[in-house]
Amino acid sequence: MAIKLAERMAELKASEIREILKLTQQPGMISFAGGLPAAEHFPVLELKAISEEVLEADGPQALQYSPTEGFMPLREAIAARMNSKLGTHVTADEILIICGSQQGLDLTGKILLDEGDTVLCESPTYLGAIHALKAYQPRFVEVPTDDDGMIGSELERCLAESNRAKLIYLNPNFQNPTGRTWSVERRRQLMEIVGRYRVAVIEDNPYGELRYEGSSLPSLKTFGEPDLVVYLGTFSKIFCPGLRIGWLAAGKSLFEKYVLVKQGTDLHTSTFSQRQVWMYLQNHDLDANIRRLCETYRIRRDTMLSAMDEEFPGRLRYTRPEGGFFVWVELPEEYNSRDLLIKSLEKKVAFVPGGSFFPNGGHENTFRLNYSTMPPELIIEGIRRLGRVLRKFIAMDPPRHDAESESEVA
Amino acid sequence: MAIKLAERMAELKASEIREILKLTQQPGMISFAGGLPAAEHFPVLELKAISEEVLEADGPQALQYSPTEGFMPLREAIAARMNSKLGTHVTADEILIICGSQQGLDLTGKILLDEGDTVLCESPTYLGAIHALKAYQPRFVEVPTDDDGMIGSELERCLAESNRAKLIYLNPNFQNPTGRTWSVERRRQLMEIVGRYRVAVIEDNPYGELRYEGSSLPSLKTFGEPDLVVYLGTFSKIFCPGLRIGWLAAGKSLFEKYVLVKQGTDLHTSTFSQRQVWMYLQNHDLDANIRRLCETYRIRRDTMLSAMDEEFPGRLRYTRPEGGFFVWVELPEEYNSRDLLIKSLEKKVAFVPGGSFFPNGGHENTFRLNYSTMPPELIIEGIRRLGRVLRKFIAMDPPRHDAESESEVA
Repeated sequence: MAIKLAERMAELKASEIREILKLTQQPGMISFAGGLPAAEHFPVLELKAISEEVLEADGPQALQYSPTEGFMPLREAIAARMNSKLGTHVTADEILIICGSQQGLDLTGKILLDEGDTVLCESPTYLGAIHALKAYQPRFVEVPTDDDGMIGSELERCLAESNRAKLIYLNPNFQNPTGRTWSVERRRQLMEIVGRYRVAVIEDNPYGELRYEGSSLPSLKTFGEPDLVVYLGTFSKIFCPGLRIGWLAAGKSLFEKYVLVKQGTDLHTSTFSQRQVWMYLQNHDLDANIRRLCETYRIRRDTMLSAMDEEFPGRLRYTRPEGGFFVWVELPEEYNSRDLLIKSLEKKVAFVPGGSFFPNGGHENTFRLNYSTMPPELIIEGIRRLGRVLRKFIAMDPPRHDAESESEVA
Repeated sequence: MAIKLAERMAELKASEIREILKLTQQPGMISFAGGLPAAEHFPVLELKAISEEVLEADGPQALQYSPTEGFMPLREAIAARMNSKLGTHVTADEILIICGSQQGLDLTGKILLDEGDTVLCESPTYLGAIHALKAYQPRFVEVPTDDDGMIGSELERCLAESNRAKLIYLNPNFQNPTGRTWSVERRRQLMEIVGRYRVAVIEDNPYGELRYEGSSLPSLKTFGEPDLVVYLGTFSKIFCPGLRIGWLAAGKSLFEKYVLVKQGTDLHTSTFSQRQVWMYLQNHDLDANIRRLCETYRIRRDTMLSAMDEEFPGRLRYTRPEGGFFVWVELPEEYNSRDLLIKSLEKKVAFVPGGSFFPNGGHENTFRLNYSTMPPELIIEGIRRLGRVLRKFIAMDPPRHDAESESEVA
């Protein structure tokens, strides 16, 4: 007789992306399924230096237990950086250091959600947020969303229809999976609405500093009441993910609850890694690192988009992200991207079917492409292969600028 | 209007220890309230070497995202070490690397507990386990416990009386807070009983390798069905806590659930820190490090116990731990150790009142003393001060071997 599990476990399933990523280990596979940062830009030499500097400076204290809230100099540096980049007015004592921003989702679920409460999210939304929050058994309401963010009137309707709305989760910049960015007007409108409904907002911003064109936009905390917004940040995409250092910024009363819950969950984030990140911020130039990253990623994005313009059938719609890691593609509604994936894997190209990004299902005609980890020539080759598969798959118009390759498709 | 929190938050209170630890920062305070390992033994030089070696060997891969399960070579090393030290037969694919063994408690609550389920525990039990599991709103049943562990007939009665028993939590070696160790006979009896009731057991063993006399005892997994036991281990007490590397060992079907839940919670444990620990195990001698630690801690324990024998009033009862970090003291039942703490803090000595270690309250006549972080002369001075306060506090017999200091007390 097996051990009886909690009821929440019936809802939790293995991530489809994880399963696809296993397939992509095959030799010769070109995978647009991942979402990793480019490892060739990780600061390996700097890590060697700062690891030594931390141990020189702090000795055994760098290896001891430490306060749940985090390392104060790092919290101060993060608050200053947020205020300068995002227009916020947060203080160091509102910053909690966490094990990647993913942990902020889990802690938020724990603090706010009872079974049956409502979480409102973009449609589609980040798969990892669905997975983290599902453990607290909420109902998800997908707010209709366009290229500028959630549609205000639809958000208002969803809030009016729910008497148990507890949380709005969103990814305002270069969203995972669509690459979309909220307009300033939509940010303002959101905060006006949540100010009336008193619902907490998670502003999850892992990609915000990876902008390849246009100007960066202010945090939701700068519109309306800052304490309604819990901001999630991370060093994973601008420094490296392997240290698992992220943070959240929350107003005083919620902050205290986060500390309480973080303490029970894992006591505190790595003492050593927090000091490594802090030492990096002291002794190296993070902004210069981000400029290098943006240059690399901009080329990869441009390469992917122009290859898609060349190779993809004309009737497909896809996003043109100004930053981040992802392009989102919509097939005509009658097609299923899981079927496309089967055919695409035969040609050794992988991507993630979009259905998983909708907590309530449907939208099987969508898929996500990632360009962050691959050199341009592989992106071109992969998109060319995928274009061929696609053209055959949807048996429709020839590609817009490439009559020649049609003979191969036939 | 404040944001509405989840119901579970009504139960979660700030740890009393945390508040006491803040007071102990005062100059001149001798604190027996902590539970930290001795920082002077942390392998600072080795950490410098292994940090560099990891980056030499693995380059950017040491800084990338990595599998939720953990770094396979570390999982293999841990399985081999458990099997050699604890008599188990675990395999690497049963080992999940977690952010300190504390995280294993949170993940277990998430997997197993619905609101109102029963958790059985020793009486008293580890405060951090109460805190972690309370977030899942169980009912705690304290199983009457003596110097050899839970009393079998009492455990059987508690299980028979509950139809919602989901989990038994225990700390078999040098328990926090009592320092007690379960006898072999009690381990066998426990596993015989849980085999019949099909209840999962957490064997939380942070101190097991810190044994200062006697011989080490086998894991609960070696008695009865191993898959009923989830073993929690950590490098915090035998290497250093600041990297936050612990592990759990669970049978296949539960293991898969742990991976699923860990993924939603924080994706994975630090790629870099896992490799640091693995590199340490490869290039350095952990057993020699443990022998050095045991020598230091044995002296501190002996110093504390003989000072207590000298200075404490004769009618007090206290444990004589064979390892670990703690001594547990019982005042006569009519006294409250929180009142004692107030008087003791005036003399600049701190400890933790025992009431917090009982999930259902009561037992205010108990307290916990820690000896792991202090040199012997400070232990002697602190116990001398505490002895004076105690003798006055309980206004009873003079100390057994120390008539002279009585004049100071008066």
